[in-house]
Amino acid sequence: MSVWINGRVGKRIDHRDRGLQYGDGLFETMRVHRRAVRLLDYHLHRLFDGCGRLGIAAPAERPLRRELARAASLRPEGVLKLIVTRGVGGRGYRPSGDERATRILTLHPLPPTPAQPLQLRFCATRLGANGRLAGMKTLNRLESVLARAEWSDPRVFEGLMLDAEENIVCGTMSNLFIRQGACLVTPLVDRCGVAGVMRRWILETAAGLGLRAIERRVRLRNLADADEVFMSNAVHGPMPVAAIKHKGTAIRPASVETAMMLRTRLDRS
Amino acid sequence: MSVWINGRVGKRIDHRDRGLQYGDGLFETMRVHRRAVRLLDYHLHRLFDGCGRLGIAAPAERPLRRELARAASLRPEGVLKLIVTRGVGGRGYRPSGDERATRILTLHPLPPTPAQPLQLRFCATRLGANGRLAGMKTLNRLESVLARAEWSDPRVFEGLMLDAEENIVCGTMSNLFIRQGACLVTPLVDRCGVAGVMRRWILETAAGLGLRAIERRVRLRNLADADEVFMSNAVHGPMPVAAIKHKGTAIRPASVETAMMLRTRLDRS
Repeated sequence: MSVWINGRVGKRIDHRDRGLQYGDGLFETMRVHRRAVRLLDYHLHRLFDGCGRLGIAAPAERPLRRELARAASLRPEGVLKLIVTRGVGGRGYRPSGDERATRILTLHPLPPTPAQPLQLRFCATRLGANGRLAGMKTLNRLESVLARAEWSDPRVFEGLMLDAEENIVCGTMSNLFIRQGACLVTPLVDRCGVAGVMRRWILETAAGLGLRAIERRVRLRNLADADEVFMSNAVHGPMPVAAIKHKGTAIRPASVETAMMLRTRLDRS
Repeated sequence: MSVWINGRVGKRIDHRDRGLQYGDGLFETMRVHRRAVRLLDYHLHRLFDGCGRLGIAAPAERPLRRELARAASLRPEGVLKLIVTRGVGGRGYRPSGDERATRILTLHPLPPTPAQPLQLRFCATRLGANGRLAGMKTLNRLESVLARAEWSDPRVFEGLMLDAEENIVCGTMSNLFIRQGACLVTPLVDRCGVAGVMRRWILETAAGLGLRAIERRVRLRNLADADEVFMSNAVHGPMPVAAIKHKGTAIRPASVETAMMLRTRLDRS
């Protein structure tokens, strides 16, 4: 793993950094493909949008793009993770407004591609609702940590997370898509959950495949009625789902075709 | 400020620490009074309880007590902040179970005592509900950060935070108490909010003052009907409230007597 902190090789950060003290920051997990960041513009858009919502002074775009391009060029395939925190601060929750954002950039080998189609489960850990944080990939990730700690079976790739009203929102590290006929549905992330960049790419690409893409609340019965279910994240793209364990039985969608078509499009893009 | 990381003088932490990566940890903000930690047993109880709930391997109690006592002895009055994270980990939310907790201990001067009785306001930022995290002082504090960033008027000490159902839960950094007659009410922290150690001490001390202490949901009308309102935290103890700004007007509780009696008890304890 290679690590750069504020553009310099280094591995340690100031203990006063608000990223550590309060989870006061954001991150992006990006796929390096052919020595470049895939969906880079979408990652930067989400990052800058998040900085705006949190009132974090975002890093300057041009040098950040250069930094990311340089790091991505070091591996033909891999994962690039960028953390942006509000920076070092004094005691107390209130930002002074004078903080300088901290960038922590790490380059990792590409993890193994999960066996597909995927096996999923449901997590008992719920997502709390807060519209002010919804959609962002903040450093407040304890719900994801607790949900992911619920299982260790390596055959189960992902766990679905519900909100307090029994809506299915997303996986611990991926977004959910459900196809029924020509309708492609993904859960709203306006109260909780992360608006994945791959999710965005799929929503924008669906029309080209003759699908009507819709964001709405998703319930268990929508999964059970689906022709096809797939998950997505920036690292692995769209991933078809074979089975979703639920209370001793399993939901087994019949089709994997949309996910496979999207994968082909993504590989060509 | 003095800083010890895992018992040694130092100021930098590994960027892979899950405290930074995911806010995967807890903290305690403790009052040093007469060169000792006030309510130390309550702080340790909450910390170890939180470690258990998050599955973090808690630091051993005896050496931790020695470490805290040694640090507290360096100042007659002050604030001691202890962060305990799950420790350094690899990529991905799932804890390996082999992590070794990181301790970050900092000793600060005592901040100025706030002008009392206090002025309060309401925050627009809400608290998201999640029973699995409620009551703990985790490193996922973005809601508190956003709420505290809502005002800069130094005359306003604290902002009250509501949940999505319009219940008043707590301040950004303190707990709320409302007295009506001989009833002392504090909001439940079973869905969100932090179960402060000073809150616990007050709940346990109330009977000795002839008060019936109750935890329940609190609404705006309960504030308006109160004989007395006060806030509490570990650093400043019980703090009487003079006025709570609400929509261009202010709620002004008549009495400060319970808060003053509790302060006297606390000073003697």
